[in-house]
Amino acid sequence: MESENKNISSDSWSERMLKVVQWCNSYDLPGSPKAVCKAFVIDGKQVGILLPDVIEQLKKYPDVFHMVTNSNNQVEKICLASQLKTYEERTEKVNKVLEEFRDQNLFPVALKGWRHENYFVRTSFQEQPLMEMERAATSLFGTIQYGVHINGYCVDPDKGMCMWLARRSQTKQTYPGMLDNVAAGGLPAAGVKIKDCMLNECLEEACIPESIAKKAIPAGTISYCFVNERGISPEVEFVYDLQLPLEFQPQVGDGEVSNFYFYTIQEVKEKLVSGDFKPNSALVTLNFIIRKGLIHPDSEPYYQSFMEGMHRIMKF
Amino acid sequence: MESENKNISSDSWSERMLKVVQWCNSYDLPGSPKAVCKAFVIDGKQVGILLPDVIEQLKKYPDVFHMVTNSNNQVEKICLASQLKTYEERTEKVNKVLEEFRDQNLFPVALKGWRHENYFVRTSFQEQPLMEMERAATSLFGTIQYGVHINGYCVDPDKGMCMWLARRSQTKQTYPGMLDNVAAGGLPAAGVKIKDCMLNECLEEACIPESIAKKAIPAGTISYCFVNERGISPEVEFVYDLQLPLEFQPQVGDGEVSNFYFYTIQEVKEKLVSGDFKPNSALVTLNFIIRKGLIHPDSEPYYQSFMEGMHRIMKF
Repeated sequence: MESENKNISSDSWSERMLKVVQWCNSYDLPGSPKAVCKAFVIDGKQVGILLPDVIEQLKKYPDVFHMVTNSNNQVEKICLASQLKTYEERTEKVNKVLEEFRDQNLFPVALKGWRHENYFVRTSFQEQPLMEMERAATSLFGTIQYGVHINGYCVDPDKGMCMWLARRSQTKQTYPGMLDNVAAGGLPAAGVKIKDCMLNECLEEACIPESIAKKAIPAGTISYCFVNERGISPEVEFVYDLQLPLEFQPQVGDGEVSNFYFYTIQEVKEKLVSGDFKPNSALVTLNFIIRKGLIHPDSEPYYQSFMEGMHRIMKF
Repeated sequence: MESENKNISSDSWSERMLKVVQWCNSYDLPGSPKAVCKAFVIDGKQVGILLPDVIEQLKKYPDVFHMVTNSNNQVEKICLASQLKTYEERTEKVNKVLEEFRDQNLFPVALKGWRHENYFVRTSFQEQPLMEMERAATSLFGTIQYGVHINGYCVDPDKGMCMWLARRSQTKQTYPGMLDNVAAGGLPAAGVKIKDCMLNECLEEACIPESIAKKAIPAGTISYCFVNERGISPEVEFVYDLQLPLEFQPQVGDGEVSNFYFYTIQEVKEKLVSGDFKPNSALVTLNFIIRKGLIHPDSEPYYQSFMEGMHRIMKF
């Protein structure tokens, strides 16, 4: 994803789009804290990535977190204490530590968003979860977050391919007021099927009834890993494409969204690079536009860079 | 892409499909020669990967290949001699060495397929090529090969989504007699546009006229890196989807194909894991099936592993 080609103008759409793609992959780019991060390990398997300031706090809980050091007494990895053998014990002990962090006002940017909603902790999607963790804390542990994003589109007889985009409510804890996919949400640790999560988000966020939403087509995933003030976020989003009837209009539902807009693909492309779009949702939308053949590899110099930037391999 | 989940039967479709995906990514899996490979560098930029037995032969041409060694006199990387400053000089000198290899019957598995057809050598698709190299030799240097694959499909009123597959001719140097996409080919170093390459392959291999083939839609890329008896093959394939008219039948053209078959998606899925399918073309087809929503993430445990295995990040 380097941007070395001197023939591409720095303010071109391609360069600006590449910057959004790079934002989503900041953990893997030069200047990231990757080199000073350590593995978070449960039962011999890496499930997350820890920043030094998080490690310092975890050291205060030696009955929960075991620091594995090298011969120079430097921490090499952090293992969940081996006496915590069950899913329930791990979940209880770790979340108790996290509640103490929150009550001590540690890591406020991440933990002010405490949601009372747990995410699974696991090495990969097909593996059995090893514990669950408060969603707001997952970026402190760099565990993989899974979600669902829905591309809502229409084929307009005059305008061609068009998309419905949402404007996030100003009261959202993350990315308030920014453009987003028509509906999206995280996969909770409650055994909810991906399709049911998709149906729920469509109904709750955009008032899309199940009779319409059930026609959405799963079209793959996107994956990436970014670092920001909340911590490290390796994320996998299951992507659905939903062709909405021409006469249908999404409606504000649970208050997560303030507005919906109907844009042509040209307008969507401009919004993607405007700085006004939630970056990972921009990546979902870019993936849709590429899959639909609306970007051509002969005319887009970063075509392959875009593909690579939306498909990180989720190995630790 | 690990296969650890004990709940998935080892002879299930999922496990067998995962094995094909892993075959395409063998360079990145345990047991690969990755640890003993060295970088091939031109003008300070890595453009390939060299196996030890290739490095041994390159040492005999010190005016072309410069061995960079560490303090223990071990080779750390191989740089093209800095006095070879132009594209033309590099191309000429390296291909002269390769002709000597061929004439000495070195690396016969790779070089018996000498094609008198050059590929570009470059760090990534958007960069200027630094030289070009005989196609049959690229796997000896582990340079990235770019190609085009076309998914030919129909929506049959009775059978639903169906695909046209090709049976490769028994006289093909690689993967003779195996199933393949309806048309495919490498991108030659002759400034051919990707779309024109697609149109050519459709016409030459499957007698699909331009009037039909021009409706093909670019739908992204797949990327992977495998090691086999020819060497190391990091490959990026530009993927096109072509909906063929129901009454249209591909015809054997230039003799690369012996036969065409019309299969339902269920039949295609069975063929993908039969051992009878060229592996990278199976990956293109799997990518198509996923993008078309014909595999569901709730019922396919390796859904994310499949996604990752078809989108290698082409960094050295």
